[in-house]
Amino acid sequence: MLPGIAAAPRFGSAVVPARRMPEAGELVEGIFSGDRALVSRAITLVESNAPAHRPLAREILRRIGERPGFAHRIGISGVPGAGKSTFIEALGNHLCDAGHRVAVLAVDPSSSLSRGSILGDKTRMETLSRRAECFIRPSPSGGALGGVTRKTRETIAVCEAAGFDVVLIETVGVGQNEIAVRAMVDCFLLLLIAGAGDELQGMKKGIFEIADILLVNKADGENKTRAEATRLEFERVLHYLSPVTEGWKPPVLAASSITRAGIAEVWRTVEKYLAHVETTGAFEIRRREQSLAWWQALVEQELRLRFLSHPRVAELSDRLERDILAGRLAPSLAAEELLNSAAQLPL
Amino acid sequence: MLPGIAAAPRFGSAVVPARRMPEAGELVEGIFSGDRALVSRAITLVESNAPAHRPLAREILRRIGERPGFAHRIGISGVPGAGKSTFIEALGNHLCDAGHRVAVLAVDPSSSLSRGSILGDKTRMETLSRRAECFIRPSPSGGALGGVTRKTRETIAVCEAAGFDVVLIETVGVGQNEIAVRAMVDCFLLLLIAGAGDELQGMKKGIFEIADILLVNKADGENKTRAEATRLEFERVLHYLSPVTEGWKPPVLAASSITRAGIAEVWRTVEKYLAHVETTGAFEIRRREQSLAWWQALVEQELRLRFLSHPRVAELSDRLERDILAGRLAPSLAAEELLNSAAQLPL
Repeated sequence: MLPGIAAAPRFGSAVVPARRMPEAGELVEGIFSGDRALVSRAITLVESNAPAHRPLAREILRRIGERPGFAHRIGISGVPGAGKSTFIEALGNHLCDAGHRVAVLAVDPSSSLSRGSILGDKTRMETLSRRAECFIRPSPSGGALGGVTRKTRETIAVCEAAGFDVVLIETVGVGQNEIAVRAMVDCFLLLLIAGAGDELQGMKKGIFEIADILLVNKADGENKTRAEATRLEFERVLHYLSPVTEGWKPPVLAASSITRAGIAEVWRTVEKYLAHVETTGAFEIRRREQSLAWWQALVEQELRLRFLSHPRVAELSDRLERDILAGRLAPSLAAEELLNSAAQLPL
Repeated sequence: MLPGIAAAPRFGSAVVPARRMPEAGELVEGIFSGDRALVSRAITLVESNAPAHRPLAREILRRIGERPGFAHRIGISGVPGAGKSTFIEALGNHLCDAGHRVAVLAVDPSSSLSRGSILGDKTRMETLSRRAECFIRPSPSGGALGGVTRKTRETIAVCEAAGFDVVLIETVGVGQNEIAVRAMVDCFLLLLIAGAGDELQGMKKGIFEIADILLVNKADGENKTRAEATRLEFERVLHYLSPVTEGWKPPVLAASSITRAGIAEVWRTVEKYLAHVETTGAFEIRRREQSLAWWQALVEQELRLRFLSHPRVAELSDRLERDILAGRLAPSLAAEELLNSAAQLPL
């Protein structure tokens, strides 16, 4: 159940009072004035898949589209245990101290759509969650489009309209998530564990190659020497990979989220990176490409769904699939047959 | 102009006699008997995008689908200068000596659809092209689906039906090509240049990670020590990447295509790899997944084309794209609007 949305809960409906959903005007004003409770409810609304919520969600998105905000969008990833939460707590506090307003969106494939995970995140980022300049919000991870919630982009738009000027998007580095997150951020930061070696085999294919900045976290105490060795090792590895952003050689940094040594340097590097892409024009080009690609992905996904839901197509598709798997039918012939059968069907 | 297809040439039509296209029966018999001239014409036919050729091409594919052949499909890639042609010449001769019948398909983005490139390839692989057990064929690289010709899979099917039991698919490691080739082969071999370092920066993202076997080529003469250093260096780099095939740690070998030292070892390693995936069942699973994925890609591509070719969709699409690029419209709203406008249009 999505928090904050009035609907019939499956359990304990007698004790959960249905909350009144505010009008579009109230929500939009709340967003523009940065009212965190209303921002939170608006996000819940745009993230909802319930058809009943779509008209209001559409109205809100349309109105904030007339007065869009601007934030730098930073993706932060790393394998479980890399210390993402403590790093975000350290970086977030550093940013708030420097006068930024920070929104933190967590894309956590293991989180359920319950208030529990929000409280969990707020507990994980204890000092940060108490700051007025910061807004922490876990995004439920919906199945489609790379494991990241379909609506994270809309959530970003709401946060930007609410005046947050840095949006940190955290995701666990377990495969497809970070590819989807890369497609919605300006800068992608990958956290590494000091000690490197075999434990890093868990890192998925391609993850090093989409990072703009790499950071060996937990460079403190006895770990410091190992962290520096890991840093140098990754500099070597990166030498063999093409940088994801033209003209930017991804630096490998080391920092401690606990002592906060190196955290200021991380942000300076992010700023240097942003200045680079803004100068070369890559920033603007990437943003446009991201929006168009997202639009196209949504259209294609829906198109495929509509096509495959025609009973005639679904039935033939099953038979063709069996023939292809048995090696009786060339894929290109099967494609022709399926498309010919669907000619003139309504979309 | 596709070679061997009777059609009106744009230049010199008076001096190019239109060749008679054989009947389906003649072509299919020619394929099954391994007649290289007819295999070549059948491939030209299935690769043709001309609507007039489709019925005959379909008929041929359907009939060879009833008696499919079997070959191990090996992808071979590397940056320009890695020595792919001389390596294929060395490996191909080794395979023919061992009693194999070898087809070589070259996917070369720079080759034009002229006989020139065929002669070019045959010149590049001089001793191999003269052997009766070997068939060398450049595939023209069509634009769609990752830069590899849309029809390379059908070409493979023709070669297999013709009794070739090893199909080597060569592609230049310049980006998307090898991803598309990976999706149609059983084993992917990546050639590296001895000396490593900066010159390898040209290697594209993800290419190391789709290789089952890496090979430092040109390990001969003065280059031998550098080749071994490069080999060790790549073993280190691979340590950080997840293997593309479960349970198979991609080995890094060294060989010389000129002295032929190490070539036999390369093929033994390919055989070891194939035995591994055949034992674990990964071979069969991958083949099925490849066929299904190819079918789906063809269907989706055509679906998108049909959708976007509706005048109403095309017009609205242009307007929505402008609004998205100007930041006036959220991609999700644009997707809804486009799909709603197309409701009930015929496919």
